[in-house]
Parts: sequence; structure tokens; C-alpha cells
Amino acid sequence: MPSGKRGRFPLQTPVLTCARALGVDIDSVCGGRGICGRCQVIVGEGNFAKHAITSSTDSLSPKGDPENLYDTRKGLKPGRRLSCHALLRGDVVIDVPPDSQVHKQVVRKRAEARAIDVDPIIRLHYIVVDEPDMHDPIGDFERLGRALKEQWGIEQLDAIDTRALQLLQKALRDGDWKVTIAVNHGQQINMVWPGFRDRAFGIAFDIGSTTIAAHLCDLSTGDVLASSGIMNPQIRFGEDLMSRVSYVMMNPGGEAELTAGVRNGLNDIIATVSIEAGVEAEEILSLTFVGNPIMHHLLLGIDPRELGGAPFALATTSSITRCATELGLTGTNQDARAYVLPCIAGHVGADTAGVILSEGPHLSDEIMLIADVGTNAEIVIGNKDRLLAASSPTGPAFEGAQISCGQRAAPGAIERLRIDPDTLEPRFRVIGNELWSNEVGFAETIEGTGVTGICGSGIIEALAEMYLAGLLTHDGTIEGAMSAKTPRINADERTFTYMIYAGEPEIRITQNDVRAVQLAKGALYAGTRLLMDKLGIDAVDQITLAGAFGSHIDVKYAMILGLIPDCDLAKVSSAGNAAGTGARIALLNRSARDEIEAVVKTIEKVETAIEPNFQEHFVEAMAIPHNSAPYPNLAKVVDLPERKANANSNVGNVNRQRRRNRAS
Amino acid sequence: MPSGKRGRFPLQTPVLTCARALGVDIDSVCGGRGICGRCQVIVGEGNFAKHAITSSTDSLSPKGDPENLYDTRKGLKPGRRLSCHALLRGDVVIDVPPDSQVHKQVVRKRAEARAIDVDPIIRLHYIVVDEPDMHDPIGDFERLGRALKEQWGIEQLDAIDTRALQLLQKALRDGDWKVTIAVNHGQQINMVWPGFRDRAFGIAFDIGSTTIAAHLCDLSTGDVLASSGIMNPQIRFGEDLMSRVSYVMMNPGGEAELTAGVRNGLNDIIATVSIEAGVEAEEILSLTFVGNPIMHHLLLGIDPRELGGAPFALATTSSITRCATELGLTGTNQDARAYVLPCIAGHVGADTAGVILSEGPHLSDEIMLIADVGTNAEIVIGNKDRLLAASSPTGPAFEGAQISCGQRAAPGAIERLRIDPDTLEPRFRVIGNELWSNEVGFAETIEGTGVTGICGSGIIEALAEMYLAGLLTHDGTIEGAMSAKTPRINADERTFTYMIYAGEPEIRITQNDVRAVQLAKGALYAGTRLLMDKLGIDAVDQITLAGAFGSHIDVKYAMILGLIPDCDLAKVSSAGNAAGTGARIALLNRSARDEIEAVVKTIEKVETAIEPNFQEHFVEAMAIPHNSAPYPNLAKVVDLPERKANANSNVGNVNRQRRRNRAS
Repeated sequence: MPSGKRGRFPLQTPVLTCARALGVDIDSVCGGRGICGRCQVIVGEGNFAKHAITSSTDSLSPKGDPENLYDTRKGLKPGRRLSCHALLRGDVVIDVPPDSQVHKQVVRKRAEARAIDVDPIIRLHYIVVDEPDMHDPIGDFERLGRALKEQWGIEQLDAIDTRALQLLQKALRDGDWKVTIAVNHGQQINMVWPGFRDRAFGIAFDIGSTTIAAHLCDLSTGDVLASSGIMNPQIRFGEDLMSRVSYVMMNPGGEAELTAGVRNGLNDIIATVSIEAGVEAEEILSLTFVGNPIMHHLLLGIDPRELGGAPFALATTSSITRCATELGLTGTNQDARAYVLPCIAGHVGADTAGVILSEGPHLSDEIMLIADVGTNAEIVIGNKDRLLAASSPTGPAFEGAQISCGQRAAPGAIERLRIDPDTLEPRFRVIGNELWSNEVGFAETIEGTGVTGICGSGIIEALAEMYLAGLLTHDGTIEGAMSAKTPRINADERTFTYMIYAGEPEIRITQNDVRAVQLAKGALYAGTRLLMDKLGIDAVDQITLAGAFGSHIDVKYAMILGLIPDCDLAKVSSAGNAAGTGARIALLNRSARDEIEAVVKTIEKVETAIEPNFQEHFVEAMAIPHNSAPYPNLAKVVDLPERKANANSNVGNVNRQRRRNRAS
Repeated sequence: MPSGKRGRFPLQTPVLTCARALGVDIDSVCGGRGICGRCQVIVGEGNFAKHAITSSTDSLSPKGDPENLYDTRKGLKPGRRLSCHALLRGDVVIDVPPDSQVHKQVVRKRAEARAIDVDPIIRLHYIVVDEPDMHDPIGDFERLGRALKEQWGIEQLDAIDTRALQLLQKALRDGDWKVTIAVNHGQQINMVWPGFRDRAFGIAFDIGSTTIAAHLCDLSTGDVLASSGIMNPQIRFGEDLMSRVSYVMMNPGGEAELTAGVRNGLNDIIATVSIEAGVEAEEILSLTFVGNPIMHHLLLGIDPRELGGAPFALATTSSITRCATELGLTGTNQDARAYVLPCIAGHVGADTAGVILSEGPHLSDEIMLIADVGTNAEIVIGNKDRLLAASSPTGPAFEGAQISCGQRAAPGAIERLRIDPDTLEPRFRVIGNELWSNEVGFAETIEGTGVTGICGSGIIEALAEMYLAGLLTHDGTIEGAMSAKTPRINADERTFTYMIYAGEPEIRITQNDVRAVQLAKGALYAGTRLLMDKLGIDAVDQITLAGAFGSHIDVKYAMILGLIPDCDLAKVSSAGNAAGTGARIALLNRSARDEIEAVVKTIEKVETAIEPNFQEHFVEAMAIPHNSAPYPNLAKVVDLPERKANANSNVGNVNRQRRRNRAS
């Protein structure tokens, strides 16, 4: 159990042997020597009518020395046996608990996300090696290879890494010819330790332009033992990607500084998570990386300038495997393998590959739209039959930049906002504070930080609520006429502003703020629409918003504002840091690497910059929620205002502006 | 011609295309673009009755722009055409000169040595790569891979090295989408340069305990462009191998010092040969290494202590491939691949593997004995059916150590010696001087250096000549009775000495010197005999003496003294630095690597230390030339003295000594 497989075996056969003969994979690191405790099983007691079996602990041999020794040293829960040393004595029903199964699963927090099968590229094997024999003077490595073949059936061992070869002879002798080896991809000895050992770790990295995140995982359980995030040290060369590329353009050799910057950051974060998890450098054997194309290139020491302009040529779209030392990484085993996920196109990087691995659109029957929104939005649409990807230049408005009172998501920033449709009065919440601004005690709780600005999710809600309250027209004009109804609408030269917070600083929404968000959301929607056109569809079945922005916004407001097309709101979700999850999946499951490499090759890449329809979609998408696209699902849950354009239309302005640009 | 292949092709077909269709491999780096000039052919003119062809230069299209441009830039000898641009216009006889054949051969100096097929693991390919296309945004590397498949049929390209990936984008653009790449093993891009390029180099290293030798080779022609030899910097940790192992035993971490020592030496020698050959670091893409097991381990950073005592376990007997940087090498391309030949057994290292590759006993019908004599003698015996190897502890006597007036082979050392059988007067030659000591002017020519001692080859000749002159008995006693005939025999306590040179210093042969050589040659012969026993043979067909010692001695004297068994003297030869030649073969020919790896696995390794017959053979072999083995071939050319033991026998002494040792 739970597989339900059954069979007949000679008396005195170890339960582990029976299980394997039945195709039930029970885990083992020590190879059936009663040391690792991974092969534990539970004996079912009672009459099992269905199986015509009366099962009891008497159906197995009593516990002998190895099991008792294991119990003394590490503890064996009542009812549990080591299947390698429990011998058949009669009919018995055996339960294999989840932690004894080879392919353990790591269940993810989100209910809809598929679990991760723990099957990492690095595996530990405990082996007993013959002592040297002058009559057969092969090397220690070759004798170890023979043992690995005999004891573990590993036939294709073809090499041993530098450090492992240097440690091998001492480990064999210190361990009295018993060692634990880490085998990479079933082919290469990556590390060796004397005696039995059950510790091997890996780190999954997500290198963002702003932050670098790392998760240190136990490669046998899949558990995350420590996580950390730091600012990307490259920030001193420029906040956004293009300013970093500009730095390289203006400073010959600047790419080396940027590469050193990110690698130093990685070394810092490796040190942090190692200490937190209590892990030694030599135990860290596997690393995986995701990042946008520019971060990808800088990590690998590749000059990113080609990515700074058309045709946005990547040095490589393939996955890359390097030794840790080749990436200048310290604090891991020197021969730890760093796997960098493949890139998809010049603007769609290994981070998007990670998002795909995490969200699995290539496995879905339903059409999924996945958008990872930052300064660029990476958009993936499709299902198991066909997948398209593009990047759309949303600009930094969604991150609070280019907004008059905008700021990054940090304590003091407005992140939630509601407007009373009758009084037109706003109420809001700031990051780091549970109270709404109209609740008792709010003033006191914000005394430390104050209200400092409005972040990306706040601006989305503010504009959507203004639209619902009639303060903002369909075409994105702040309605000056409403100044008759509320003193919060004020004239500002030829446009109007909406006052949110009259403190210090004053927080207002200006017409320029609206325009910045319109440009951003227009780009996002237009990229989405373009891919939908290519796919020949008018609606998607599911929408997933990935990334930090996606996990903070209320998806309903994103739809009201028209960032995303209409969809059943129950099927719109936030995936959080899906790119980082993808890196973690590639760390914990070797076949996930083959999977994403294969998927990336089949993805149809769309370059928005050269698509004639993009501009048209963009202009249409400037309106709120959209100039023409219907929102039937949204209309079911939100009372949308009538679509009515203001005479002095922003959309019209932008439209004219763009036509002028094209003509010139 | 010269293959004699013939065929019919449509008019206007390039001659290169015809040749390939016929299976005649004509070289090309540029892929038929008229740039590299490797595909030159010569048009045969006249009536070829045998082929029923009238051939003339008119049978080909006249020279066009590419050929004229090549002629202007690099020169095209009269009568030569670039086969890629010469089109068929009629019947023609084409000669493919040796330098246009893909598998060029490097002919070795020794007539009996097989030529080296030039087919290195690194190959250059000139390719034209498509420019990036935003409609198909694959990376530059992937586009290059497509071109390599289309233009060169290389299908299995699976990765690109770190440095090449970093240089790729700039090289493609600087070269206007034409680049030359170095491909490692047909699978991995190792380096990239803009435009056409025809330079790739490699270095073959022989790491001896005393000296490190290096040959820098052109990977396309196989030519040695520069050679150098330096003292192994490890010498400051001990002259011989065991003293270096002792250093590690007594100084924890000492192996790191020894490793740094040899690597520093390698970096020095790389710099020397690169400058001499006018080669840039980034052009050096391939390295091969041979060395004895301890040098092998220290090169790889492996603690050599296990090799210092039984069971003499090697860390690995397999070949090893590492990046240059992993071996701490500078001055080559950072991703140059270093290939270390396999070891055979604890005392029989990668140097012996090199000797085998050079001398090819595994390809021979005749039974070959190959001995590489140094402090240990590595002995290989067998033929294509069966091959055995052993190491025998000869000690340093053959290198002039443990000899009262012994010294290394250096200017001033006696290297040749003859004794007049009538007068019993010696004459000799010293290294660095063409004159014999009895020739007019000898005294003047040695004024600078003097006569400083006697080296390994000198001591062999001295003892052999003493034996032939009756000054030395069959059992190795200096004949005191001969003092009646010559004043050069003098008493020294209970033994006698033979005076060679009464200068300053005096150079004499003492009884202890004779004993040291007897021990050395007894060990060499006993090891040989042991392998012959295992093989069930009484005589060998060929003898090859490898190494510096083997190349300096006169093989006849080696046989008179009984270092080697009897053999037709015409079939006894010196191979010089055969180990180094083996490294050069592995550098220039990729399949030689597979060959030696396969051969090493089939070799039967014999450990003399645990063979009960070894001692017996050793004692028997102490006599001159041997106590019982016949020397019929030697007797044909040398008038051997009757075998007569002295009453006060050395052999008897040694024998008794050994019995005492065993009993205690």
C-alpha cells in the first residue's frame, strides 16, 4: 500500500527486495545496509478481506541488531520497520509511507500548482569498495566504479570531478572502504565523503534586476531550509536594466564590473542561507538560476550590449551548465554544477522559462495567460498544443516609478484604496499597517513611518476606484466636472488632480499619473491581445499574474483597469515568484530540465516591436478598461460605468502623438 | 592520384566536390570558400594511356577571382589550383599533394617508428552565420550551430565553452558574420575568432621527476614549432620520487607545495615555447600530459602518499580531462583541454602509456620488450595478442648516483669507454667533447670543463669493457690478480679498484660501484624475466630501450652486462623520449587516446614485489651477463669471456645477505 501491488515471495526475503520486485520504489541511500533509515515501512495489522490476508507484525522477522542500532541512534517510530532488514515470514500488508517513497513530492502552497517530484540531478549513494589488490592494480576510482555498478546498477559512470578525485583516497581509508558519493546525472562523481552520509544541498536563485532571491533546499527531501533576498548590487550602476546596459556602452569593460557585482551578491546570499541552514560549503552541490536575458548574460560574464537594441540578439538561448568556480562562486563545493535555465528570446529570458516550469501552461488543456509584470511584461499564452511568448514594454509605472507620488512597495506606501461612490472620499491602507485610514487609531499607528507615497498595487486600485466612482472617464481623463461634488478634485493647469491624502507629503493622483498607467497597461494588454490574435482566440480560460507586482495587486482591479482581458475572476490568480519556483523545480527534479529545454524550443516567439498590429492594439487598450473589448465576466461582479469618452481625450492625444512619431 | 580513384561528374562540378564524392578526403578549413588554400590540387598534363585520358589545364575552368586573390595574398605554386574553385570542363587527372590530404602524417625520425596521423581533437572550421532575425529569435550560438550543421555536417554540437561564449557575439559582428571556430571532439565549441583563421596549437608535456619537457605543435600540420626542457621545480623537495613523497609525509599539506611547484614549472615552460613559436595564449587549445604515477598525482593535486607504500594504490588509472584553469595553468586558452594519459599500475604510470603509444607493442606481431629505465624501470613485454607490464626497482645507479665517481649526464662526464684487451689501458670520451682521451688535443679541449665523473652510459661501458678485458669476473668481482698486469688495478682494503683517470678528481671503478650496477641490472633483468615467464617465452624478438638512459647507452654493452636478455642486436634499439612522443601522438591524433585507453585496460599488470620468483630471478641475474641465461646472439658479435666465478663471490655475498634478511 498505497500502490495496491501484491505478489508472492520466498520466506525470508527482505521486504525491500519484494517491493522492488513489484516495482514499488522504496528509497535507500545505504543500499540496504540498515544505516540510512530511508526504507521504513509500516506493517498493516488485521484481516484484509479484500486481500484475503491476515497481517500482523509476526509476519515479519523480529527486529535484529541493525534495526535496533538504528532505533537507538536515530529513533524508529512504533510500528515502523526498516524494509531492508525485515524478512518475510508470512502474509503481510505493507504500507509505504510517503517519506519512504523514492519520488517524494513537495506540495506547493497554492492549491492549483502541481507538486514537485523530488528527483534531483545529484544523488547520494553509500557504497562499500574493495580494498586495493596488488594483483589487480586498478585505481581507487575504478574500484569504486565497479562497486557502484554492482551495488547500485550504475553503469555509465565515466568521470570524477577534480575535488572528489583529490579527496577520494583519504575518504576511502578514513571510512574504512565505505564512502558516500554524490553522483551527478548518474554519470559523474561529484563529491565523496567517508562513511555514511545523508546531507546534500542545492540552491535555487532568481536574479532580478532589483533583487536576488535564493532558496537553499535539501536535495533528498526537497524542503526549503533557508531563503533570503538581497538587493542586486548592480543597482549602483543603474536602477533599471537599460541604464545598466548604457553603463556598459559608456564604460568599456563595464560588463566585468556588473558581472562582479552580481557574483558578489550571489556569494553574499550563499553565505547567508548556508549559515541559516547550518550547511557546509562542500555539501552544496547543485545550483540553478533564472533571470531576465540581461541578468542571464551578466551572470555568465557575457557583454549585454547586444540586448540593448534591435535585433536584441542573445548570445545563447540554450541552457548552460557551468562549474561554480567558473561563475566565480565561492561558498559552495568548487565542483557544484550551476544550471542556468534556457532563454526564450531577446526580451523573454530564463525567468520566463522558470515561470513556465512553475505554472505548466504546456501541460494545460485550458488556454492560460501568464503575465510576469515588471519594467517589461513577459507574456505567455497557450496550452499543451501551442504556446506563444512575447515581451511588452510596460515601463516602470507598475513599480511606482514615473508616478508623481509613486514609490516602491515599502512600509508607508499606500497599497490598498477604496473610494466611497457617494461621498467620493478615499480610504486606504499602507504597507506595514493593518488599519484602514478611516479606522480609529490609524493616525497613531502611522506615526513612525507616515504615509510616504503610493506603490504599484495602490495606484492600480486608486485608478480603478476613481473609474468606478466616476472620477475617471473611460478614456482616462480625471473628470474636472466632479470638482463640483468633491473638494478632492482640483485643477492643475489644464488638467485635474484627485487628492488622496492631505498630509506631508500630499498624495495626489495627477493626469500624468493616469497617463503613465494607461501607457503601461496599454502595452501589457496589447502584447496579450497580439498573442491572442496569433492564437486565433478572443478569450482565455485562466489568467496567472506572476512576479512581485502580480502577487500584490487585487486581480479584480487589474481587470477593471483593463490590464488583462476579461476572464472568470475565479480563474484569475497570482502565482507569486513563479520564476524562482521554476528554478527550485529545476533544482529538485532533473527531468524538469529536459522538460523546459524542450518546451522553450517549441514556443513561438513574438517580437512586439516588429508586429504591425501592436500599435493599433496599444491605442485601443489605452481606454479603461478597453476601447472595444467586452468584459462580460467582470460586468457580472462589478457595476462598470458606461463607456463614455471625455471630449479632451487622452487616448486621442496619444493616438495623434504616435501618428506624428511614425510620420517623422 | 595518388589514390587512383576515378569517376564521372557533370561539367562545372568543383574538383573538391568530385573528390569528396569519390571518397578522397581533401582538407578544407574555409568550407570551399577559396580562403584557406588547404584544398590545393595539381593538374596532371599529358596522355594517360592507363586511364584513356588526355589531361590538361584546359580541362578545368580558368582561375577566377578567389584563386587569383589567394595567389596574390598567400601565393599559389605554378600548376596548383584551389579544388573548391576549379570546375570540371573535361577529362582530367588530378594529383592531391600530401599537404592537401585531411589525414596528413608526421613522419618520425626513427625509421622503425610508425608515422603520426594528424587528426587532433581540436578542429578549426570557418563558417558563415546568419544574422539575427527578430522573427526567429534564437541565440547567436544556436544560429552558429545551425550553420555548422549545414556547412560542415556537424550534428552533435551540444555546448560552448565559457570563454568562447563570452567572445562569440563580438566575433560574429567583428567578422561580419564570418567566424572561425575551434571545435573540441566534434561536440563543443572551444574558441571563436572573427573571420578566417588557420592557427591552433597544442603542447605535449612529459613530466619527469627530474625534468619537464614540452613540445608546442601546430595542430593542423602536426609540426613541432618549439621545444623546451626545464628542471622540475619539485627537485628542491627531493631529488627522487620517494624523497618527495617523504616530504609530504613529514609536512602536512606538502602535496600542495609540490603541486604548485610542478604547475609553476609548466607555466614557465608554456611561456618559453609560446614565445619561441610566436603563439598567443588563446591559440593554445589542447594539452597532453604523461608522467610517472607520482608526477601524475601531483599534477592533478592528488596527495601521492598512497603511492609511497604497498599496495601502491593509484587514485585513478583512467585518463583524465580537465580545463587548463583547473590545473592552475596560465598562458593557454582558459578552456584549453588538458588530457592526462591513463596510468597502468601503482608503479607504471602515464609515462609508460606514452611509451606504448609511441612504440606500439600492441600492434606488433613480434614479441617486443620495451624498458624505460630510470630510478625504476618500467618494463612492457608482449605483442598484439598479449601485453604485460611491470616496474622493477633498479635504483639510481644507472643515473650515475650511488657510484663513487658517478654523476648525471652533463658536460665533463665520461659517457663512452674502451679498454685495450692487451694493455688494459682505458680510453674514453666525455660529454661535450668529440675527441677520445687518447687522441691528440684531448687535454686542451677539456681544459674548461675537465673530466668530472662518469655518467650512466659510461659506467655501463666501463664495466662491460672490464668484463671483456678480464678485469671483472662473471660474478662481478674486480680481479685482484690482474694487478700483476696493470698498475690500474689497486687494492682497496679487501677489494680492488680500476683507475680510469688519474686526474683531479681521480676517477675509479670500485667494487661497490660494480655491486650497485649489479643490483640495478639484476632488478631490470629479473623484472623482464618475470614477464617472460608469465608469457611463457624464453626470448624476445625486439628490444627497445626508452628514456634518456636508453638513448645514451650502447645497446651492445647493455647486453654484455646483462641488463637485457639476449636478442638479435639489429633488433635492439633506443627509442629516445618515447613517453614524450606518446604525449605528442595523443595531442595530434584523437583516436590515439581511445587506443591507449583500451590498451591499458587489457595490459596484465605484474607487481614484482609480490611475485615469489622475482627474488630468485634477481639473484640469478646478478652475474655478468647472467648466471644461467644463454646469450647466443651476443656471442656472435662479441667474444664473451668464459663464465667463471671468483671464489670470493659478490653474488654469493648478496645471496647470503638476502637469506639472512628473509630469515630475520
